[in-house]
Amino acid sequence: MKIGLIGFGKTGKSVASILLENKKFSLEWVLRQSKVLEHRSAPEFLGIESNEPGLIYSSSNTNVNDLLEKHPVDAIIDFSSDEGIYFYGESAAKKNVKIISAISHYKDKELKLLKKLADKTTVFWSPNITLGVNYLLFAARFLKKIAPWVDIEVNEEHFKKKEGTSGTAIKIAEALDVEKESINSVRAGGIVGKHEVIFGFPYQTVRLIHESISREAFGSGVVFVAENLKDKKKGLYSFEDILSPYFAV
Amino acid sequence: MKIGLIGFGKTGKSVASILLENKKFSLEWVLRQSKVLEHRSAPEFLGIESNEPGLIYSSSNTNVNDLLEKHPVDAIIDFSSDEGIYFYGESAAKKNVKIISAISHYKDKELKLLKKLADKTTVFWSPNITLGVNYLLFAARFLKKIAPWVDIEVNEEHFKKKEGTSGTAIKIAEALDVEKESINSVRAGGIVGKHEVIFGFPYQTVRLIHESISREAFGSGVVFVAENLKDKKKGLYSFEDILSPYFAV
Amino acid sequence: MKIGLIGFGKTGKSVASILLENKKFSLEWVLRQSKVLEHRSAPEFLGIESNEPGLIYSSSNTNVNDLLEKHPVDAIIDFSSDEGIYFYGESAAKKNVKIISAISHYKDKELKLLKKLADKTTVFWSPNITLGVNYLLFAARFLKKIAPWVDIEVNEEHFKKKEGTSGTAIKIAEALDVEKESINSVRAGGIVGKHEVIFGFPYQTVRLIHESISREAFGSGVVFVAENLKDKKKGLYSFEDILSPYFAV
Amino acid sequence: MKIGLIGFGKTGKSVASILLENKKFSLEWVLRQSKVLEHRSAPEFLGIESNEPGLIYSSSNTNVNDLLEKHPVDAIIDFSSDEGIYFYGESAAKKNVKIISAISHYKDKELKLLKKLADKTTVFWSPNITLGVNYLLFAARFLKKIAPWVDIEVNEEHFKKKEGTSGTAIKIAEALDVEKESINSVRAGGIVGKHEVIFGFPYQTVRLIHESISREAFGSGVVFVAENLKDKKKGLYSFEDILSPYFAV
Repeated sequence: MKIGLIGFGKTGKSVASILLENKKFSLEWVLRQSKVLEHRSAPEFLGIESNEPGLIYSSSNTNVNDLLEKHPVDAIIDFSSDEGIYFYGESAAKKNVKIISAISHYKDKELKLLKKLADKTTVFWSPNITLGVNYLLFAARFLKKIAPWVDIEVNEEHFKKKEGTSGTAIKIAEALDVEKESINSVRAGGIVGKHEVIFGFPYQTVRLIHESISREAFGSGVVFVAENLKDKKKGLYSFEDILSPYFAV
Repeated sequence: MKIGLIGFGKTGKSVASILLENKKFSLEWVLRQSKVLEHRSAPEFLGIESNEPGLIYSSSNTNVNDLLEKHPVDAIIDFSSDEGIYFYGESAAKKNVKIISAISHYKDKELKLLKKLADKTTVFWSPNITLGVNYLLFAARFLKKIAPWVDIEVNEEHFKKKEGTSGTAIKIAEALDVEKESINSVRAGGIVGKHEVIFGFPYQTVRLIHESISREAFGSGVVFVAENLKDKKKGLYSFEDILSPYFAV
Repeated sequence: MKIGLIGFGKTGKSVASILLENKKFSLEWVLRQSKVLEHRSAPEFLGIESNEPGLIYSSSNTNVNDLLEKHPVDAIIDFSSDEGIYFYGESAAKKNVKIISAISHYKDKELKLLKKLADKTTVFWSPNITLGVNYLLFAARFLKKIAPWVDIEVNEEHFKKKEGTSGTAIKIAEALDVEKESINSVRAGGIVGKHEVIFGFPYQTVRLIHESISREAFGSGVVFVAENLKDKKKGLYSFEDILSPYFAV
Repeated sequence: MKIGLIGFGKTGKSVASILLENKKFSLEWVLRQSKVLEHRSAPEFLGIESNEPGLIYSSSNTNVNDLLEKHPVDAIIDFSSDEGIYFYGESAAKKNVKIISAISHYKDKELKLLKKLADKTTVFWSPNITLGVNYLLFAARFLKKIAPWVDIEVNEEHFKKKEGTSGTAIKIAEALDVEKESINSVRAGGIVGKHEVIFGFPYQTVRLIHESISREAFGSGVVFVAENLKDKKKGLYSFEDILSPYFAV
């Protein structure tokens, strides 16, 4: 599966390294806003031995249509910003290239664009593309369906300098009808990231916990999504759409 | 919903107290092997104010057909032993009384009998009838389907005097293809009961934890099962059969 | 060691049961405000086989001097209220009876009285007399001394109906210079009680956790304190004063 | 404080980076067995801006006496192997350079040498030089002194490929008289490292947990030890010797 990656910040780099080490995927190119590293090769920059091209382009000097013509891909993975979709969206949809977006926040305008693009190609969006967090959301929602009266609390822990409540915790709280204000946030030292949903029953307690180890989890998530999207028809998909079919197996 | 309870050991008593406090259920009678407490009333013995009869009978002096005739019930809850089903099974099935069995272990012979009874009435069996443990099993199996290659470990903690590996932990291990030998058992002080399934991904960890607070959790499980079994046709049901439909909601 | 117990509420009863089961202690009597259970025997009421008298007196009909004369004790354990000390304090001190108070809050006036009584007898006060919580406080304070710059957070979890922040959590926060406002409180289902202190270092995290199982922990704490107070001279002691000497061993 | 570092493997590199970022310390040189990176500068290799020399030498081409003459240091930090001490020990002791060894295992022969060197200079040895693990050991031993009858269990979790029981867990078990065979080891995914000591009391549970985030914790440990060793006279010191004085403060 040939991949084009949009965005090459910290997370983009981790995702690139995971794709380069996975033999089912070939990282054809990386497109980023900055001109730093332009025309260098991602595998060489990341110190990973690989025959995949992974050439780095800057969006300032690149026409996406030309890029997709010269270096065709099966899917575009977007780790840039909410603006990225305007740059590559139409071109990708026209060529039936799958779009996998891991952008944290989209405004309504971009969500409308995603839906429009989904008329022509397979579009996937998840604001947190790790398997673990999405499973947690899924499993927590399921327990709330079973026991809608159960007491639910959300705890999250991150490194001291992280500002504001974790976006993932907010998503969990929203999915479970827990008030955002009641999320318990711990900020201490170098904790990478921990999310815990506590279900308090009168005579028992259930805890669902997700612990992040490193950013590469986003790369694993991309691999999981891309493989599960392989045979999906055009349309707009969420992570839940991808997890649900496993239930029936 | 009128209930007859078989078994009045420690767990049976906790279940009785939960049923007596729940207004949707009426505890009609308790049937137990011992003659201790015979003809006394369960609510009075347990110190719970209730208008429900809850008269205690000993199986040595009781004919189940007569009992069901004089004090008809909608469902029989079995917390006795694997032998109990022989005493009341046929009589209950004949009268189309639902059977809810929470017996820990049945031999093949009893399982065959359950299936036979399920031709006539609604039969439910769960070796651990708490909602939390069954949810844990369900959610853990689901994650294994999604990521069959993930590393799984099972930890359990109980009070110092508990002998052998926890039966629930063994069930969890079996459901996840984890070797029983690799279950980690902690025995310390008065820990009531904790089960943890650890899913180790390369860059993230997911933990599902169940903590028991008290035996009354079995009573809550009975209530949940009985309510969900209300409209179920004859047949043999497991806890999974009851949880699955929530998924579709 | 002969014991007189002041207070016979839920916690007082749990403490009485622990004392009755411990052969090193003899529960001579119980003194409570209410006249309910007056002149009955604590072991009989609690269903514990014991030869210890444990006769229950009501403070409305009892003169403490007479009681101490007729039924002398080595120590008085106080689980009543902050007013209790006025009733028995002077009488106990005069007779050199040790005072072990487990009252949650004292006002300045009572603290002054404790100090005055400590001129005549051995007086101990701990607002939470469990060994575990006091160890936690001690160990946490020690780590803060070692690493005064470490990030500290306090989490506490209790049953849904518990109102306000846990008093123990507030004490922990005060001891560690953590703002009370930043304590994270979870209220869910039937959680008995959990306190966690998180020490966040840049590259590692240390967690100290205390989980309550049942009220009897207060009884174990009383036993521990009474044994360690046996050879202590007159003076006012805290739990820390009792733990410190173990350090040197 | 001028530092010479022996060993430049994965951990040695992390320690070097911590020392380079700490302004109280100056990394004068690194001495390693391999000739790879010989004569390059540690800060340049690690991509850290620093004016500290940190020149890398190979032990094959270096005379320690000459090195200490030309580039004098206050302390030598040893992250090499159990053989390292033979290479630099006598030279360091002669010049009254402090020795801080973080070697995991020493045989009796090396321990004798350490003691001999401690007649001339300040020698410190800790098989795990992180502050967190040593605090855990200290705090756990203290609780065992207070309650020698408590049930103790040791759990440890590490990445799937880690072979054998964690050395740190074994040290914890030895310090607490827990049988090595009863340590519970979880091996799953990419878990960096977690150690938990469970103290099971009849009515409460205390848990001491240490979670590793990254190897740099060893560097922080070195900084802590070096600062606390500054005014220590000649002699052989353990981490416990360094922690104890904080108790009295």
